[in-house]
Amino acid sequence: MFIRNAWYIAGWSDEVLADRPFARVMLNEPVVLWRQPDGTPVALEDRCCHRALPLSMGKIVGDRLQCGYHGLEFDAAGNCAQVPGQSTIPPGASVRHYPAVERHRWIWVWMGDAEMADPALIPDFHWLDTPGWVAPTGTFHLKAHYQYLVDNLLDFSHVQFIHRNTIGTDAIADIPSTVEKLEDGVAVQRWIPDSPPPPLFDNAYGGFGGNVDRWMNNRYTVPSSVTFDIGCAAVGTGAADGDRSQGVEIRSLHGITPETETSSHYFWAYARNFRLDDEDLSALLAKGAHATFEEDVIVLGEQQRSINQTGESGLVDINGDAPGMLGRRVHADRLAADVFG
Amino acid sequence: MFIRNAWYIAGWSDEVLADRPFARVMLNEPVVLWRQPDGTPVALEDRCCHRALPLSMGKIVGDRLQCGYHGLEFDAAGNCAQVPGQSTIPPGASVRHYPAVERHRWIWVWMGDAEMADPALIPDFHWLDTPGWVAPTGTFHLKAHYQYLVDNLLDFSHVQFIHRNTIGTDAIADIPSTVEKLEDGVAVQRWIPDSPPPPLFDNAYGGFGGNVDRWMNNRYTVPSSVTFDIGCAAVGTGAADGDRSQGVEIRSLHGITPETETSSHYFWAYARNFRLDDEDLSALLAKGAHATFEEDVIVLGEQQRSINQTGESGLVDINGDAPGMLGRRVHADRLAADVFG
Amino acid sequence: MFIRNAWYIAGWSDEVLADRPFARVMLNEPVVLWRQPDGTPVALEDRCCHRALPLSMGKIVGDRLQCGYHGLEFDAAGNCAQVPGQSTIPPGASVRHYPAVERHRWIWVWMGDAEMADPALIPDFHWLDTPGWVAPTGTFHLKAHYQYLVDNLLDFSHVQFIHRNTIGTDAIADIPSTVEKLEDGVAVQRWIPDSPPPPLFDNAYGGFGGNVDRWMNNRYTVPSSVTFDIGCAAVGTGAADGDRSQGVEIRSLHGITPETETSSHYFWAYARNFRLDDEDLSALLAKGAHATFEEDVIVLGEQQRSINQTGESGLVDINGDAPGMLGRRVHADRLAADVFG
Repeated sequence: MFIRNAWYIAGWSDEVLADRPFARVMLNEPVVLWRQPDGTPVALEDRCCHRALPLSMGKIVGDRLQCGYHGLEFDAAGNCAQVPGQSTIPPGASVRHYPAVERHRWIWVWMGDAEMADPALIPDFHWLDTPGWVAPTGTFHLKAHYQYLVDNLLDFSHVQFIHRNTIGTDAIADIPSTVEKLEDGVAVQRWIPDSPPPPLFDNAYGGFGGNVDRWMNNRYTVPSSVTFDIGCAAVGTGAADGDRSQGVEIRSLHGITPETETSSHYFWAYARNFRLDDEDLSALLAKGAHATFEEDVIVLGEQQRSINQTGESGLVDINGDAPGMLGRRVHADRLAADVFG
Repeated sequence: MFIRNAWYIAGWSDEVLADRPFARVMLNEPVVLWRQPDGTPVALEDRCCHRALPLSMGKIVGDRLQCGYHGLEFDAAGNCAQVPGQSTIPPGASVRHYPAVERHRWIWVWMGDAEMADPALIPDFHWLDTPGWVAPTGTFHLKAHYQYLVDNLLDFSHVQFIHRNTIGTDAIADIPSTVEKLEDGVAVQRWIPDSPPPPLFDNAYGGFGGNVDRWMNNRYTVPSSVTFDIGCAAVGTGAADGDRSQGVEIRSLHGITPETETSSHYFWAYARNFRLDDEDLSALLAKGAHATFEEDVIVLGEQQRSINQTGESGLVDINGDAPGMLGRRVHADRLAADVFG
Repeated sequence: MFIRNAWYIAGWSDEVLADRPFARVMLNEPVVLWRQPDGTPVALEDRCCHRALPLSMGKIVGDRLQCGYHGLEFDAAGNCAQVPGQSTIPPGASVRHYPAVERHRWIWVWMGDAEMADPALIPDFHWLDTPGWVAPTGTFHLKAHYQYLVDNLLDFSHVQFIHRNTIGTDAIADIPSTVEKLEDGVAVQRWIPDSPPPPLFDNAYGGFGGNVDRWMNNRYTVPSSVTFDIGCAAVGTGAADGDRSQGVEIRSLHGITPETETSSHYFWAYARNFRLDDEDLSALLAKGAHATFEEDVIVLGEQQRSINQTGESGLVDINGDAPGMLGRRVHADRLAADVFG
């Protein structure tokens, strides 16, 4: 069971084209995406209402999607507008239409009640397409329920184990944190005041010439987005009060879309606001982020496989689970409101 | 659920041999085929009555099939005739026997009540082995229920879409047709009087020197055979009344055998009565037929996959479905009589 | 349903290491094996009690197994001894511990009530590691229930059919045998007195210079071990009374562990007490045994596949099944006592 009244990422902007349909299974439903001639993205049920062929096997003809079997044409609203060989359209000839919005280099699709599809509810990922930021990106097919990945992203205690070969040198979990339950998610904040700058940030800034105030925050937004806000600023320059002008920042961005109950589409980006034109650095960060997130993808796939065999009964919790468990409570409340509200 | 009292194609004549058993799953049942020393085909349950090993893993010994595990031997009636190491045959030691007949280069097997297995009920495919005709052939494994393929073969409206890259230039669906419900199937007839001959036919005839009367007929026979009768004759020479002596003909022949509820064996042939010795033409037609039918096989596999996920509810019909829907009614009547008769 | 109160082979001694965990599914349960620093083998549930990750994805740290996700550490009893980032262990934080014993080059695991895990119940396979014997070995993944393999190993009547290309020249099934039901299995004995020695044995002995007394015995021990005792001695030297000093012997050894209801781990060895240092002979016998047993593995996989499709109803028995059926009765009694005892 999924939260339906929510925006989910269907794909990257450059995956959804005006000259070729694009198929994606979301929340167990086949969805086909394409663009109107003016570039507006369209999301329809990927199943012709005539003989059920995936419409993604067809082609785009003008502002319509034409089925590859008998040539039925569907407009951007999902209504059949043309049946070859006859002048009338059979009653009820339409496929489901999903609201779709392009924002922050992603195509977002609303899988629930279209009346409620308010673009203002799209989670903030503006670092993906805002001047002053640059972001290597990638996609994984995750063989696990998305909540296992949300748990993982809200939990720093796994870093030194899963990521021992990549980023796992710091015992981040030992840094004191504040965990806050929000109406639509969870916020975790960590401050490391007056400490030596990490080399990446020190280089990026051009040398702080001394200690910095560092932060590591993460933010979960139901159902399945997590953003990391990581950075540092020259000590005492007001970063904790919101003035980051004397610092540098990274945003590690994670958008997840359920495919089935046991698989997900995992879209990530690794944005920074410094050395924007340094392509070597971009390549290095892209490679590092890919390697790190892939470690999670492998472990979570094995976790899902294990749970498929043995269930979840008898599992115990540890202290580091607190943010994830809080996230699950917010998620459960939203799901209950979604289903029964 | 399948119509059991019917002849189904188990394989090509040259697939069923006297020196090696041949396995084929038909109507969800494992069947083993072989030949008696005199060439008579035999079809038995492909499961030893002792320890269930497929008999197709064994070998043929004289006029018997010997199991590959303990050497039990079965005669052409399916009775165990020999158990190595003992002089008696255990009571009930036999496997199911299916009536089998070789006709028109195919081995036909009757999957129902053997008492009703009348060879006269075998659908007419005489163009496969009658002098004056030559026919390239092929086999596909279709990942779909056979009725989807029957629908497809009774419907010309898909041609310009599925087959846009092969034969789909004509809008055949726009040619007026007559559709007739028969006791055992459906007949569709199309006439295009007094029109220019298609190049293939014009060349074949040695030049008509003018217009022709063309025909495109198809005939469905329950449960799962479809034949196309396509050709043309010099205009006004009586083709519409049955005199095709001044013309040339093609028969596109389709025999389908259900493997499971979602897969089928698809046997095809593309027969002609002209330029019989032209091997280049045979190769060209074989390649073209294969390419065209494979387009259907791909689309129908995707149709089945879609229906597996989403079911058939909510589908609408179009005008071009009329022959197929008529075929489904004849099929449903036969199935009801088969099950309850 | 499996007999749980029994020792099962988890793997070869050299598969279970002190520096890397080893995963094996036994009786449908994921098991992880490793060794204490002193070499003692340990078998635990292969599922972390925190988030269900297989512990076999982790690493060994001192005398503990550390989970690869959050670093929880488990001692050899399966108790969680350490949770990184916190000083207390959550109540109930443990995984199932299975008694494990190393014997005869195999690691044996008791899958039932640990109170009943008496090492004296481990089946005798001392020929694997006793001076005076040498044994090539191997492992197969068998895609069948282990009882089908036990049936096969207790039955000589299949030899001339399955093994016609390897060892199947003799009609061993025609040699008179005695079959004895034992408390924990079945014993089959065959004597061929005063007959020419088989070449392998004659060469091995250095020439008997005349006839020999031959024996071919097999012994099934519930749930899933079978040993063959094959050999010959100079005629009239007392072999039948237990004096084999004037003869040579082979032990064909078979230990089977259920993986699932339809798959098994099949461990074999082919021991001899002659020409111990002849590596060419070892290679020859290893190759021959592998080829022969693989023939069974293929057939039994097809048997299981057939039974998955069609069930076991309607199967008949033959005389050669007697030892196997007796074995199944002993097995059924043990299973009933195991479940209800």
